[in-house]
Amino acid sequence: MTRPILAEAVGSFLLFATVIGSGVMGESLAQGNVAVALLGNTIATGAMLYVLITMLGPISGAHFNPAVTLVFRILGALDTRQAIGHVVAQIAGGVAGVWTAHAMFGLDVIELSTKARTGPGQWIGEVVATFGLLLTILGTLRHRPHAVPAAVALYITAAYWFTSSTSFANPAITLARSLSDTFAGIAPADVPAFVACQLAGALLALGVARLLFPQADLTKDATADV
Amino acid sequence: MTRPILAEAVGSFLLFATVIGSGVMGESLAQGNVAVALLGNTIATGAMLYVLITMLGPISGAHFNPAVTLVFRILGALDTRQAIGHVVAQIAGGVAGVWTAHAMFGLDVIELSTKARTGPGQWIGEVVATFGLLLTILGTLRHRPHAVPAAVALYITAAYWFTSSTSFANPAITLARSLSDTFAGIAPADVPAFVACQLAGALLALGVARLLFPQADLTKDATADV
Amino acid sequence: MTRPILAEAVGSFLLFATVIGSGVMGESLAQGNVAVALLGNTIATGAMLYVLITMLGPISGAHFNPAVTLVFRILGALDTRQAIGHVVAQIAGGVAGVWTAHAMFGLDVIELSTKARTGPGQWIGEVVATFGLLLTILGTLRHRPHAVPAAVALYITAAYWFTSSTSFANPAITLARSLSDTFAGIAPADVPAFVACQLAGALLALGVARLLFPQADLTKDATADV
Amino acid sequence: MTRPILAEAVGSFLLFATVIGSGVMGESLAQGNVAVALLGNTIATGAMLYVLITMLGPISGAHFNPAVTLVFRILGALDTRQAIGHVVAQIAGGVAGVWTAHAMFGLDVIELSTKARTGPGQWIGEVVATFGLLLTILGTLRHRPHAVPAAVALYITAAYWFTSSTSFANPAITLARSLSDTFAGIAPADVPAFVACQLAGALLALGVARLLFPQADLTKDATADV
Repeated sequence: MTRPILAEAVGSFLLFATVIGSGVMGESLAQGNVAVALLGNTIATGAMLYVLITMLGPISGAHFNPAVTLVFRILGALDTRQAIGHVVAQIAGGVAGVWTAHAMFGLDVIELSTKARTGPGQWIGEVVATFGLLLTILGTLRHRPHAVPAAVALYITAAYWFTSSTSFANPAITLARSLSDTFAGIAPADVPAFVACQLAGALLALGVARLLFPQADLTKDATADV
Repeated sequence: MTRPILAEAVGSFLLFATVIGSGVMGESLAQGNVAVALLGNTIATGAMLYVLITMLGPISGAHFNPAVTLVFRILGALDTRQAIGHVVAQIAGGVAGVWTAHAMFGLDVIELSTKARTGPGQWIGEVVATFGLLLTILGTLRHRPHAVPAAVALYITAAYWFTSSTSFANPAITLARSLSDTFAGIAPADVPAFVACQLAGALLALGVARLLFPQADLTKDATADV
Repeated sequence: MTRPILAEAVGSFLLFATVIGSGVMGESLAQGNVAVALLGNTIATGAMLYVLITMLGPISGAHFNPAVTLVFRILGALDTRQAIGHVVAQIAGGVAGVWTAHAMFGLDVIELSTKARTGPGQWIGEVVATFGLLLTILGTLRHRPHAVPAAVALYITAAYWFTSSTSFANPAITLARSLSDTFAGIAPADVPAFVACQLAGALLALGVARLLFPQADLTKDATADV
Repeated sequence: MTRPILAEAVGSFLLFATVIGSGVMGESLAQGNVAVALLGNTIATGAMLYVLITMLGPISGAHFNPAVTLVFRILGALDTRQAIGHVVAQIAGGVAGVWTAHAMFGLDVIELSTKARTGPGQWIGEVVATFGLLLTILGTLRHRPHAVPAAVALYITAAYWFTSSTSFANPAITLARSLSDTFAGIAPADVPAFVACQLAGALLALGVARLLFPQADLTKDATADV
């Protein structure tokens, strides 16, 4: 296992454990005030993203997200073999993170979500959420690479609140969340539409980024910002 | 469409969608505890401002606000034609953001706010809010340009809480919010007084900034801080 | 009026308006959940401190606090005449900020607090709070001057929660809060003991800082970190 | 007493007082909504960590944690005598902080916790929490040393929410919390298992860090990042 693959796996493990674990914690303590649960879920996720991108960005680009890996593959920052390695590591590490979160909170380790997340509103939400995420990454990487960890963390912080889907914006995390019947879960049947919308939003962002930012530098991966 | 115009439109789209969307999310989840809803609205707005100013500041100055564009026009950082382009892009992009937020949350896309926001207290609030915003921009740009994204984001974070109007501080967002019958809305009849107070606060800040900060550098736009 | 004096007055105006205004906002919206009101009050105050120290630090040192001015006077960063000017500006600007907050929220502009804040626990709280604040300023200024705005903002964020007095830690703000019968108020009779504890904490910090940090550089004022 | 020892004692004093004090404050104000209490506890702890690591990192490495000291001892950044001095200072300063928090809030200064924290779920939580903390420190120190204060603060912010144990991740704080019958307490009988899990997580992180990050630079202590 190469260092970038290990970085994607370890980072996805901690990130997905945070998304699921903080959702369980919030829901169990918030006395039914879902906004308070979402605040805890948001703050934990944003904080962990800053940490992981700061620490692992120089090694693997800190994608933790197949939509991000796809865009950097299109831009030529990775070859196809490396991109597949990234995605496999994201899913394997991330699912391990979900299962560890279940074990920590004394839940059944293996389960499927029953939480319906569907409909045109939430699909638009996923397009917008992933569009904004990729635009943030491409634009910040171009002008202020050292601000990428804070920008991505704060983008997701905002997106948890302004999109109707609470911004999954990540095919690997969508898949992994379908394995958790908790606050952050999504029913398996609702996964394909979410993933399709995420990929559409990512490609839309690539198009807009090519208009907004000089194209040449978009090929630079996050690993270049050491 | 030039790159700065596109940047103002895309940025206003994401910013205004965040203001409206996070207000809807907060109100729908907070069980009537409006302070919790406002916390979510605040954190999302502040976070998105950091992201957008970091990413788009080098391209257009990241105004997203006609009061900011007016002050930089007075200082000579843009010509009148450019300033008008900025303002049109802010309104068009911003209104599209409001409508997208409605679509995401399954609300009527086209609607008018019925939320009264008026009276001397709130008018003073808008003068103070916009005064502080412009002073923050002008002062930070002068001494520590790389801190502008964090300073503006945190200023608005504070201003949502310390002003009685929850700090609109932006004529374009005031107009756009009048098109949303949600948490962040404002009745159309109350818009003109808010806008007048915002412009007064912005001009007051310009006067105080000329006393506080050496005048020469005030002409430097945010685009210069790359 | 010199630029440093104006900076202390404008900064204290915005800071004290934030402390009072966000307290009123929080209490009026939080349905009696005082922890939620304190969260809003905390986030607003911390955010505004970052903004004001970033923007005005290079001009006046951004004290907004007679205990800070006293310590820098002892260290020789200001002369006695300058220090008195700072303190007068802090009180005058700050009281104007309190009154403006009252006007924004439609309260009586001139009033006195009836909120008792007294007893050994809160007095220890003020000693600890002010000790930590001054140690933060002196230590951060010594090693990482550009981190002072974030360090002071986050110190006060923590101190609002970990001290029983919610950390006034500032004689000028203690005096100004006695003029506000709101969430952040303090009865006038309780002011002298708070101020005495604050000055004791500040001097204690100076002693510990002399042991912890090489003494020579402590004379450097925040204005030097441009 | 050397300056590093004093730094560890003063830092642990303020950190542990913050953990206990903000827990008491949150619980007393949150009307039984434990998620709101945990939000206050989280924000205060994360904010204080940023402050203390910024201020004291250049002097002692800002460990405040025997698990961190152990790992840097293994890496050769301190000798055994220095490491023992660090740990004694962490415990002595930290316990003084707990007792001061009790005094501030008018509680019995000397008490023992009655709060059970035990079971496989929470033990896994402590392994994961301490693993992530040490990985964050070692990885960030390697690539972006000036980001250590923010990364550690935000890691703990996330870990309070995503681990079932609310992330003690520190043998000294575990011991000190057993002396407080409050929100953040832990029954003395439950301390040994927590500490064992913390040390296991720390050593696991050291192993993974050796795979992820080039080994040579791991010996660099935080004091080197001035």
